[in-house]
Amino acid sequence: MLNFTFHNPTRIHFGKNQIREITQEIPKGSRVLIIYGGGSVKKTGLLDKVKAVLKDYQVSEFSGIEPNPAYDTLMRCVDQIHMEKCDFLLAMGGGSVIDGTKFIAAAAFYEGEPWEILKTFGSNIKKALPFGVVLTLPATGSEMNNGAVITRHSEKAKLPFFSPHVYPLFSVLDPILSYTLPRKQIGNGVVDAFVHVMEQYLTYPVSGHVQDRFSEGLLLTLIEQGPKALSDPENYDVRADIMLCATLALNGLIGSGVPQDWATHMIGHEITVLYGLDHAQTLAIVLPAMLTIRKNAKREKLLQYADRVWDIKIKDEEKRMDMAIEKTREFFHTMELKTRLSDYEIPREGIEAIIVQLQEHGMVQLGEKQDVDPDMCRKVLELCY
Amino acid sequence: MLNFTFHNPTRIHFGKNQIREITQEIPKGSRVLIIYGGGSVKKTGLLDKVKAVLKDYQVSEFSGIEPNPAYDTLMRCVDQIHMEKCDFLLAMGGGSVIDGTKFIAAAAFYEGEPWEILKTFGSNIKKALPFGVVLTLPATGSEMNNGAVITRHSEKAKLPFFSPHVYPLFSVLDPILSYTLPRKQIGNGVVDAFVHVMEQYLTYPVSGHVQDRFSEGLLLTLIEQGPKALSDPENYDVRADIMLCATLALNGLIGSGVPQDWATHMIGHEITVLYGLDHAQTLAIVLPAMLTIRKNAKREKLLQYADRVWDIKIKDEEKRMDMAIEKTREFFHTMELKTRLSDYEIPREGIEAIIVQLQEHGMVQLGEKQDVDPDMCRKVLELCY
Repeated sequence: MLNFTFHNPTRIHFGKNQIREITQEIPKGSRVLIIYGGGSVKKTGLLDKVKAVLKDYQVSEFSGIEPNPAYDTLMRCVDQIHMEKCDFLLAMGGGSVIDGTKFIAAAAFYEGEPWEILKTFGSNIKKALPFGVVLTLPATGSEMNNGAVITRHSEKAKLPFFSPHVYPLFSVLDPILSYTLPRKQIGNGVVDAFVHVMEQYLTYPVSGHVQDRFSEGLLLTLIEQGPKALSDPENYDVRADIMLCATLALNGLIGSGVPQDWATHMIGHEITVLYGLDHAQTLAIVLPAMLTIRKNAKREKLLQYADRVWDIKIKDEEKRMDMAIEKTREFFHTMELKTRLSDYEIPREGIEAIIVQLQEHGMVQLGEKQDVDPDMCRKVLELCY
Repeated sequence: MLNFTFHNPTRIHFGKNQIREITQEIPKGSRVLIIYGGGSVKKTGLLDKVKAVLKDYQVSEFSGIEPNPAYDTLMRCVDQIHMEKCDFLLAMGGGSVIDGTKFIAAAAFYEGEPWEILKTFGSNIKKALPFGVVLTLPATGSEMNNGAVITRHSEKAKLPFFSPHVYPLFSVLDPILSYTLPRKQIGNGVVDAFVHVMEQYLTYPVSGHVQDRFSEGLLLTLIEQGPKALSDPENYDVRADIMLCATLALNGLIGSGVPQDWATHMIGHEITVLYGLDHAQTLAIVLPAMLTIRKNAKREKLLQYADRVWDIKIKDEEKRMDMAIEKTREFFHTMELKTRLSDYEIPREGIEAIIVQLQEHGMVQLGEKQDVDPDMCRKVLELCY
């Protein structure tokens, strides 16, 4: 097992009607800014419910955080915070709103040009506004971690940052809030969580037996429960499992003490920036190709994955690995995601543009062994057709 | 899944040579009191190593915390803290030292008779001294939770308490520090961690699929790695697995959102107080009998445990459950623990004394359904012969 430090101070309030807990968490007298996305929290009545709970606070709103939250939008929110002197943020939504709120929280106190936060991957954040989360979309795990991914269109950049200052103070995880999600977002969320686990699990063995078992437990649960979320959308227990899986997939625990990959994510980010695909759509395309190209380097873990997650016991090791990758692809199809760049009519010539983007963003030594260079990325992308 | 709140702010520094991290954690200028047990930390040189790391702090020592830390000993430490004006505690040892330190940390600020802390199970603790941990014995999980068990001989009482104020600020988990443990403590530690998982796992199903998988993952790892810790005591990876298992077995995660039992522990505490058995020795005796007596109430989880943890696939459900319980008993034997009260020459008449103790301490509605009453405890204890 590798050395590690693990610390995760976010308080999780999980279950039915846990929204009422937020008044225990937000200091009395706070000026609260509620931050949300396209307005579905209005339509579902959730916004009104939260405002009723917060009736003893001064509350204002900022709406319009888009999927892949945009730097310019977030900076407008920072202006509003300064104008209104807000001192507590409440993110209501999924990963984009939470990621955006993390950036806003850090940028509000940042001296200098806030784009530097992204250029330095968050390393020079000294302070951030406190914030909480009411989660509506289980997917990214942002509700219980200290990372975020921000997009700046003028720079054609979608970049991650991390800081110990941007853990949510609390997150309310009420599975019922996910009932009204569009079908597409359910599929996206399950695939996103699944690939988060794979990025931390499917590398090479370092005797991290507990981490392996936990990762396999999350994968098995997503495989069992994911399709039920599509066929039986108001099944509480199914939604609860998926919400918990998505949070635990990326709260730092299963990745502690083991190597991590993330090459699939970095390529996926560039596809989103260039061609507008949803984050999970890019992952469903890149992961199967990535595993195929790097089959030898990942042999031991791929064989274990085939055995323990897909119950594939055949002797022929090459076949066993291929079948596990094929099962993964089929699972993404079951969750109604496509797995080829050609499915989205992205021309083959598009590959070079992605490679150029990766190079521009310094993503030239990706993967758990830093050996995923632009040439290997090209091979992966060619296999995405 | 049941509603739950999860929060665990302890920072874990896991791995080789992580002791050097403690100067990052203890505020400059602190007056540090190092608290330890019988002196093995002196013999192994660990105490000197830690004092060298803390060379820029004012450091004093309190030694002599015994297994099942005793109220009177702990109160002497509180006196020393007041005299020396210590403002940071560093526990070096296993569960007893850490549990004792938690009590000391709370008692140092407690207004009124500190025994009340135990009588009220910690509910009226308002404040505690900050403290860190250097773990030498993986077993109780106390290094990453907010609970402790304290013994007061004059009252013949061994009682638990809990408080959000007694989470360790940090814990250093270096598996190498466990190399020098006596064989008996390795067995005890593995069994203790195993039973902690069982108390949270082996109840009745509430669709907590993630928690089930995580619990099973810990049990499987303990079963695989536990015997290796006995046969190959300086195998780093084996010790790392066991240390991580013991911590995760009782840091609140696997018990979130699911029913919990703890009847085995409450009976075990009384056996320790009356007859002086080690904590884990009592658990190894009581658990198999407890599972046998409550087989029907625990049927679904016992069948799942048989299947997933012991790979017992036979159709006959009664037999499958019996075999799983027998396998559990055999595992405790493999870890060199005995599983009968008669193995310790405790006379059968001793049962009534245990029942009286349970009643005196209000332990009359134990278990996940509060239906483990004194009569059922008697049946369990009779089966321990």
